Amino acid sequence: MAEYQENKESLQESLQLIVELLDKHELVENLVHKQEQDGPKQELVESIVHRQNIALLQKKLESLHPADVAYILEALPLEKRLYVWDLVKADRDGEILLEVSDAVRQTLIADMDSDELLAAAEQLDTDELADLAPDLPKDVLQELLDSLDTQNRERLQSALSYPEDTVGARMDFDIVTIREDISLEVALRYLRRIGQLPDHTDKLFVVDRHDILRGVLPLKRLVVKDLELGVKDVMADDAVVFHPEDMADEAAKAFERYDLVTAPVVDENNKLVGRLTVDTVMDYIREEAESDMLSLAGLREEEDLFSSVWTSVQNRWTWLAINLVTALVASRVIGLFEGSIEKVVALAALMPIVAGIGGNSGNQTTTMIVRGIALGQISGVNMQSLIKKEIGVSIINGLIWGSVLGLIAYSLYGNTILSVVMTAAMTLNLLLAAIVGVTIPIVMSKFGRDPAVGSSVLLTAMTDSGGFFIFLGLATIFLT
Amino acid sequence: MAEYQENKESLQESLQLIVELLDKHELVENLVHKQEQDGPKQELVESIVHRQNIALLQKKLESLHPADVAYILEALPLEKRLYVWDLVKADRDGEILLEVSDAVRQTLIADMDSDELLAAAEQLDTDELADLAPDLPKDVLQELLDSLDTQNRERLQSALSYPEDTVGARMDFDIVTIREDISLEVALRYLRRIGQLPDHTDKLFVVDRHDILRGVLPLKRLVVKDLELGVKDVMADDAVVFHPEDMADEAAKAFERYDLVTAPVVDENNKLVGRLTVDTVMDYIREEAESDMLSLAGLREEEDLFSSVWTSVQNRWTWLAINLVTALVASRVIGLFEGSIEKVVALAALMPIVAGIGGNSGNQTTTMIVRGIALGQISGVNMQSLIKKEIGVSIINGLIWGSVLGLIAYSLYGNTILSVVMTAAMTLNLLLAAIVGVTIPIVMSKFGRDPAVGSSVLLTAMTDSGGFFIFLGLATIFLT
Repeated sequence: MAEYQENKESLQESLQLIVELLDKHELVENLVHKQEQDGPKQELVESIVHRQNIALLQKKLESLHPADVAYILEALPLEKRLYVWDLVKADRDGEILLEVSDAVRQTLIADMDSDELLAAAEQLDTDELADLAPDLPKDVLQELLDSLDTQNRERLQSALSYPEDTVGARMDFDIVTIREDISLEVALRYLRRIGQLPDHTDKLFVVDRHDILRGVLPLKRLVVKDLELGVKDVMADDAVVFHPEDMADEAAKAFERYDLVTAPVVDENNKLVGRLTVDTVMDYIREEAESDMLSLAGLREEEDLFSSVWTSVQNRWTWLAINLVTALVASRVIGLFEGSIEKVVALAALMPIVAGIGGNSGNQTTTMIVRGIALGQISGVNMQSLIKKEIGVSIINGLIWGSVLGLIAYSLYGNTILSVVMTAAMTLNLLLAAIVGVTIPIVMSKFGRDPAVGSSVLLTAMTDSGGFFIFLGLATIFLT
Repeated sequence: MAEYQENKESLQESLQLIVELLDKHELVENLVHKQEQDGPKQELVESIVHRQNIALLQKKLESLHPADVAYILEALPLEKRLYVWDLVKADRDGEILLEVSDAVRQTLIADMDSDELLAAAEQLDTDELADLAPDLPKDVLQELLDSLDTQNRERLQSALSYPEDTVGARMDFDIVTIREDISLEVALRYLRRIGQLPDHTDKLFVVDRHDILRGVLPLKRLVVKDLELGVKDVMADDAVVFHPEDMADEAAKAFERYDLVTAPVVDENNKLVGRLTVDTVMDYIREEAESDMLSLAGLREEEDLFSSVWTSVQNRWTWLAINLVTALVASRVIGLFEGSIEKVVALAALMPIVAGIGGNSGNQTTTMIVRGIALGQISGVNMQSLIKKEIGVSIINGLIWGSVLGLIAYSLYGNTILSVVMTAAMTLNLLLAAIVGVTIPIVMSKFGRDPAVGSSVLLTAMTDSGGFFIFLGLATIFLT
């Protein structure tokens, strides 16, 4: 029995072993290279060691699950990754390409010629092809489409026609259908004739002769119910169904809510066109969580850990440019008050505190709201209570932390008015942060934008410029 | 057939309807209250409308899936939430308590007395009780334990003994076992005698007479293979198994990697003790993603959208206090250079830009690394290449954005040395951000801490203080 713990250890060990072999290999190559200059004396010996290493590597790779090979490819820097990729048996290329992340897949595909790509694609099902297709060069994709039979070509084209975040782009076609007018016994005999069921099959889809969905027959009912009963009597006719144009994240929520393993996908006439499985949904949830986290930091998901320096620079520049603009605006706000700062230089040292705490507090509010929107908990009916609550929190926090800071400012500079200004500015900036922190994500989502992307930049821009303006403005009025 | 789309709409509609009914109800209550002062003239009429509203509400609630009721409770402010909670039929309390988030569950439990809690708990399975138990008052939990039979008490106690993030705390006990020495026909006859299989059953667990796991028999093999064959011939003996002490996140990765629906959990002697199901794993993935996102903003997951102002203040104060300290340190760094700022006041306006861009760039690096650690892609073998890459990115970004800023500074203040200082400070601070951004999460994870929590604060502290120090230090040397 393959114990999971052993599996896990051996995966880390495999990575270690492969890196060691690669390093040894590199050593040998360098040695050979060096000796070529010295004279080809020991070349033969080295080349035997070399070949042994490669054979060891290949054997190790063959023993691994495609998902595990994918893991190892992702954890290797580009050069080593491509070296290992060349060693992987060609007949596993397709499966492994499916398992790696988008960014890593692109590096692997860039390393393959058309024939290799076509050979890899031929190992895959239509729904798997649909996942791979967007990354393939256009000519390869065309050749691939030409090589398919009509049904599969139509399926692939239809899957490709749906946006990436819809059910249509995520569904597969591994559906087993039966008729409702047969008995369970006949159904079981039919299944035994098929001899094999697709992965994740937890239910059969019951359709009429026009492929219109009538219900679903869970396997766990099939195996416990009386064989004399008809499919019609045993099937569930209230199954959750999806349409190809449904959004994948809504489908994911439904899978969680109703604990589904597979669900039928039907068109507008209730005709069965595919199915959605829990493993796809789980991949989607993981992808979304990652992309939310990355977009909060202004990264697109296309960057992998070992992307080239240049790819990374391109990936990150938009965000840095936006931040530069907002920082410049804040800097100009400070510029307005240069006269006051010249008179009371302590203002320069204290102002980043007001701006910074405002940003942090506002980000807490925004994060709560973004999460509430993602969970579908925020709507017109409760927005008022939300704003009221956040304003309450910000006033309390402002008074507490503002007073602490006022005291610290007093102890540092011995200026009462300065410390009162500090307290007032903190409270006002936290209030601004609360209002802006609730409003920005809600407005963004009202306009159909993803509130996780950009809310935080916009907020920080407001709390920075606002904080400097409030603090320096108050100081100018009362101190100079 | 229950179409998913309809479901979704009706869920939003249900929320809308319930809020409307609650508002009407409040209106009526206020009216009645007002009229009591005027005299009890129309009281009877109002009370009939009142009762009608409540009946409507109750009917609506009864028509909803427990997960949907949970959704509605989460979307309501505390007062309305508790009002609706009182209207929910007592016999659904248990299921609904399981579905709501931790924070909301606590508000609901606080509203129930011991008898209600015990009644709710009695509707649940042992593994469900284990999820609920940590939130129950101690005396209720004890009473509950006393009311269970020996097997279930032992199971509950053992589930409670494992930390929340282990397989042991997440497994359930809905296992169906068979022996390996029977034929498929006998197995099917046995199943038909049981008459019902637990949710998510995609495989039967094959054990010997001492409950030692011998293999697993997927239902999809059971229904397609020849009935004459023995369980032993058809079962898979290389199933992925878990141990109660395995970490839940490793198990979640294995579920994704190997596309599992259920998996057996065994003790050190390979004795079957429970099973893990994909719905639990999916809940875990969602929980983790949310808690990562919240902890990046310094929020604990216990806060729900409508927590009281005071709960929220407590939830957020640690983070704000930490930020206050780091902001103060940065402020003191500026304080060191007050003399320079008095001479060249432009420094005050420009310094937040250097610090801010450094923080943003460093956060991009940290986010990549935190993600890489979460995916298990970062280990000793590739750390060097990572640091090299990030340093390359930061130098390029520093030179590009530093030059842009240098030009802007020159156009604003017409001072060549100032603009060179600006460019140099930007480049150096981005370099600092890159090194710190890679190092902090890796060191935190080496010391067994969650790198998602706190990495970002530490980083910003370094890039703020570092940015001010580098910029003002260079300016002091070359400008004053």
